[in-house]
Amino acid sequence: MCAPRIVQFAHDSGDSALRPSRRALSGAAGLAALAVAAAAPATGTRSGSVVDLTHSLGPNTPVWPGNPQFAMIPVAWHALGGFDQNSITLWEHTGTHLDAPLHRTPGGASVDQLSMTDLVAPLVVLDISAKAAFDVDATVTVDDVDAFERIYGRIPQRAFVAMYSGWERRLIDPAAFVNLDHQGTPHAPGFSVEAAEYLVTQRDIVGVGVDTLSLDGAAGHDFGAHTAVLGAGRYGVEMVANLHAVPPTGATVVVGGTRPIGGTGGPCRVLALT
Amino acid sequence: MCAPRIVQFAHDSGDSALRPSRRALSGAAGLAALAVAAAAPATGTRSGSVVDLTHSLGPNTPVWPGNPQFAMIPVAWHALGGFDQNSITLWEHTGTHLDAPLHRTPGGASVDQLSMTDLVAPLVVLDISAKAAFDVDATVTVDDVDAFERIYGRIPQRAFVAMYSGWERRLIDPAAFVNLDHQGTPHAPGFSVEAAEYLVTQRDIVGVGVDTLSLDGAAGHDFGAHTAVLGAGRYGVEMVANLHAVPPTGATVVVGGTRPIGGTGGPCRVLALT
Repeated sequence: MCAPRIVQFAHDSGDSALRPSRRALSGAAGLAALAVAAAAPATGTRSGSVVDLTHSLGPNTPVWPGNPQFAMIPVAWHALGGFDQNSITLWEHTGTHLDAPLHRTPGGASVDQLSMTDLVAPLVVLDISAKAAFDVDATVTVDDVDAFERIYGRIPQRAFVAMYSGWERRLIDPAAFVNLDHQGTPHAPGFSVEAAEYLVTQRDIVGVGVDTLSLDGAAGHDFGAHTAVLGAGRYGVEMVANLHAVPPTGATVVVGGTRPIGGTGGPCRVLALT
Repeated sequence: MCAPRIVQFAHDSGDSALRPSRRALSGAAGLAALAVAAAAPATGTRSGSVVDLTHSLGPNTPVWPGNPQFAMIPVAWHALGGFDQNSITLWEHTGTHLDAPLHRTPGGASVDQLSMTDLVAPLVVLDISAKAAFDVDATVTVDDVDAFERIYGRIPQRAFVAMYSGWERRLIDPAAFVNLDHQGTPHAPGFSVEAAEYLVTQRDIVGVGVDTLSLDGAAGHDFGAHTAVLGAGRYGVEMVANLHAVPPTGATVVVGGTRPIGGTGGPCRVLALT
């Protein structure tokens, strides 16, 4: 039944050498390059290391108050067909995950619509762990950005700017990570509204990351950092891991977000290439 | 006739754009380095492009026979609290996704245990689209590997080797992508057992990818390519997209797999950096 279609595919794809991405030079230079390629194969290998900025995900992963835990149940077994497999159910904003503009902004870009170019970006880490150690509502301020730039230089255009507060040390006790007060309001560091707006409007960043559950610090506010970042069509990543292990500037971050159509975000793998 | 392509690939592979363009400034950086940074801030920006090798994921994404479709339902709304969010349910091996060794091998590494270093690798694309256009059970053979290496040089150690068969053209009709015969057996290209074993044992690759639903071609066999790759502690990626848009060698692939604890695989974002 597929023969006609297959023939069409053959017609379309048979001469892959002529595709634009594979079209290049010709003649003597080509022969020389052939010799080089045969003698010294291209490796494509990066120098440098990879740092995983992703928490593993499980039933004990802390979630925003009211959200359910991550759930995984077996649905296939080696003994019955030769393969293990699980069914996974989670709300999109669980674990190390993306916030797409649509999460906060009606009509905003969904997670599958994010520019892949923006998912590979210069990584900047703003370390506020000193003040966060004494203030659970500490925020990244414009002064923090200024202080960073005096030392490390101007934040690059299209950078991904992550807050490091040291909060992940609390993961040993998920309740301490969520950190509800007696009224049920979570408290943890995040971006101030002013700093979020400044980074988006004055530095043209691609997005922001935090090592806590929310881009916004001092919960109980009106989620102004979410609004500033996502409302401007940029993205956020929450529960970023291991920011202590990367330099303040100089690394490249790859935000490997999954691509559900129409999704407001979702689990992602965040890797830093140094 | 291959010479024109090779010139471009030789250029790509020799280009330092594959590496992040600058080194980190750690807290221990010297004053000289600091001065340089302040005067001319490093950008961390890669030159080169990003190619998305990931299909978007939705209810029409083809799945292995018997597996359920991807499902997403709204659980939060802008009008009720200021945020949209969805609950997602899927079997791990849905869409562009990872196969961890545990999928096939009792006691094998789960997806959260994969080495992050192996998730960033030189990308090699074996193009079998010409024969796959006429044979739905076409496989990558050892001869295909030999032919590739005669042109492009030896496959680099710790490479990720992907099969491009042109199969994704069938996504316009999910049933044609799964391609069941009258007995309910799917047919699509994949790796031969011999080629999979050869790549693992003779080329020390990190993993293999396919643009179809299964690492194994010619379904109905005993999934020997899965066994060869996953049984050796390497990983697979199925439903890789857009392999026609990357060069046969010279790019770096980043496999952004999510990290469920004990998972046998799962959706991932695969990006090629050229």
